[in-house]
Amino acid sequence: MTSRASAVLELTRELIRRASVTPEDAGCLDLIEHRLRAVGMRVERRRVGEVDNLFARHGESGPHLMLLGHTDVVPPGPLEEWTSPPFEPTERNGCLFGRGAADMKSSVAAFVVALEHYLHEQPDHSGIVSLLLTSDEEGPAEHGVRVMVPWLQDQGLLPDACLIGEPSSLETLGDNVRIGRRGSIQAILSVRGRQGHTAYADPADNPAHRAGPLLAALGQLDFEDGDAHFPPTRLQISNVQAGTGAENVTPGELKVLFNLRNNPNSPADVLEARLRALIEANDPGPWTLDWRVSGVPFGPATGRLPAVVDAVCRSQLGRAPVQDTGGGTSDGRFLGPLGIPCVELGPVNRTIHRIDECIGLDELERLPGLYHGIIAGYLSGSEEG
Amino acid sequence: MTSRASAVLELTRELIRRASVTPEDAGCLDLIEHRLRAVGMRVERRRVGEVDNLFARHGESGPHLMLLGHTDVVPPGPLEEWTSPPFEPTERNGCLFGRGAADMKSSVAAFVVALEHYLHEQPDHSGIVSLLLTSDEEGPAEHGVRVMVPWLQDQGLLPDACLIGEPSSLETLGDNVRIGRRGSIQAILSVRGRQGHTAYADPADNPAHRAGPLLAALGQLDFEDGDAHFPPTRLQISNVQAGTGAENVTPGELKVLFNLRNNPNSPADVLEARLRALIEANDPGPWTLDWRVSGVPFGPATGRLPAVVDAVCRSQLGRAPVQDTGGGTSDGRFLGPLGIPCVELGPVNRTIHRIDECIGLDELERLPGLYHGIIAGYLSGSEEG
Repeated sequence: MTSRASAVLELTRELIRRASVTPEDAGCLDLIEHRLRAVGMRVERRRVGEVDNLFARHGESGPHLMLLGHTDVVPPGPLEEWTSPPFEPTERNGCLFGRGAADMKSSVAAFVVALEHYLHEQPDHSGIVSLLLTSDEEGPAEHGVRVMVPWLQDQGLLPDACLIGEPSSLETLGDNVRIGRRGSIQAILSVRGRQGHTAYADPADNPAHRAGPLLAALGQLDFEDGDAHFPPTRLQISNVQAGTGAENVTPGELKVLFNLRNNPNSPADVLEARLRALIEANDPGPWTLDWRVSGVPFGPATGRLPAVVDAVCRSQLGRAPVQDTGGGTSDGRFLGPLGIPCVELGPVNRTIHRIDECIGLDELERLPGLYHGIIAGYLSGSEEG
Repeated sequence: MTSRASAVLELTRELIRRASVTPEDAGCLDLIEHRLRAVGMRVERRRVGEVDNLFARHGESGPHLMLLGHTDVVPPGPLEEWTSPPFEPTERNGCLFGRGAADMKSSVAAFVVALEHYLHEQPDHSGIVSLLLTSDEEGPAEHGVRVMVPWLQDQGLLPDACLIGEPSSLETLGDNVRIGRRGSIQAILSVRGRQGHTAYADPADNPAHRAGPLLAALGQLDFEDGDAHFPPTRLQISNVQAGTGAENVTPGELKVLFNLRNNPNSPADVLEARLRALIEANDPGPWTLDWRVSGVPFGPATGRLPAVVDAVCRSQLGRAPVQDTGGGTSDGRFLGPLGIPCVELGPVNRTIHRIDECIGLDELERLPGLYHGIIAGYLSGSEEG
């Protein structure tokens, strides 16, 4: 294990040294391509706009496990606030510091080291193992996985399961994995009335009066669609606005902005129909609803991959991870909604996107072994890592 | 009648010529004082701050009828928009034009002419007739009738009834009189919660959710306290505000501004207790209510004065006025809440506070006779004008 451990530290340091703030790749993918070709992987590069993408694979047929990651990082923020420069990997207090140390150059390095090790051991494995990397995950994400997925689909190269190296861990490596994501919907409800003087206007024309029962109903909506993996769909009002600010003028319009986090049991179109019926039933006067789906729910991941992840974590870390569906957005959103089981497993996320981002050296050393175990377990048909 | 008619037109022109924009009196009260002293009235002048006030009376005991008015006018606005200069009284198309022509130099002139005529005829009348004038009705109204009323009260000189020369008429002179006024209350309800991220915050901490049922209840309040003279008390929401504007942040506070127009059957303290109980019953979370009474309801005027006004209008104009409780604020608000019946009777208010303010010459000529009839009727104990 010593050589593998050293290898992941060395490669992570090399990647951190490349200041690959989105959409810059800064040579990360060149370095990785070189390493993967050396162990026999077929590597394709696609540049889309300013974005570099890499797809590497090994194996011809059978179950296809894709590893998914990104080489881009968020900007470092004020350089003077960093204890050591963000793009100079620095070890202190048992940690490796640098932008991307946790999100997610360590995972990318561990993917590479695990693949090297696995393909050296099992050049004739069954199934397919692949690695998809982009330099556009932290940014607009327009030219990364979003465009690589249909490109893979056209070639019949969509995977059967996807292991994402995002920092899913909360306190210690592997205590938490992500197996799905709630959707997100932004809605703007406008209720119109007629502006007037408080002393004379008809309350029936006042949208703040007409919309009262509807507001109450919105705030009390209970979707009761939760299950073992997902909390119930939830609606939260973010803004309510009516009136000109003047004390003696009744409002001509009331606006309610709300957000829905929906689980896969409640697709956006079903929710929209339900909301429209609720509005109509509460008769607020003339209304419009602007409905914008900003994220489609997916998961929970089922089948072989989560079982293998669970078994490998038990075996190597001594405990099974908690499976959750929380956290921020990841590129899993481009694969999960296609029905591909996605599991996110990666470093502790406490310092991501922050000054003095870091990963514990112990944690880093364990990552390649975890990923190696999952690749081996998934492709062998055994759940032992 | 010819000499009386000429007298009112002449005096109105003299008053309009004096550019008495609040708080300036510009010599109006000097002119009036001189005229009233000449017919034996006792005149007292009080200057409070920048404001000139005049109190004139005649008679020693018995029923006391006060005439109430103001010599100040609102600013003329853009001079170039006036057809003739606002402070040059000009007759055309059967009307007298000038700032204050309707609000209310014509009424003040008619008061003076009516008093001259009445005291000439009835120097030994029973009762007391008085005239209270201020140059601070259109402005902040801090140093006018507001301070004159307690000054009169200290001397035992509060009237038994008050005839106000405000322009109460809608289409033709005397078609409408005002016999009271609804009160006005401004309230700010704040409901506090805890700001959070829409994806993670607990809806129980969201004040826009917690306050929904309360908003619905506020908008549907029905006071059912109307009577023959006053419409029911009414609540109007003027503003609702919650949220930072950001789509993904739940609000930390929801604010509702509302206005109540209350009739005398629902005093402000009774309403406040009812509103506080309603808020508590709807359990919106931590809340505060800012409650500001900006006008106390008064009326309807009862007893001798409205009966005399009614009879005089029937006799001189051929029809009884409609009695209403609408319209804007007047200095009656400082007398009515003391239980003093107040009746407003004056010119058509169509052009008040506007460019090309005017009064019909016919209307102007009829005013002194109306006021004379009301004074005579009230003090004689007869309702015939």
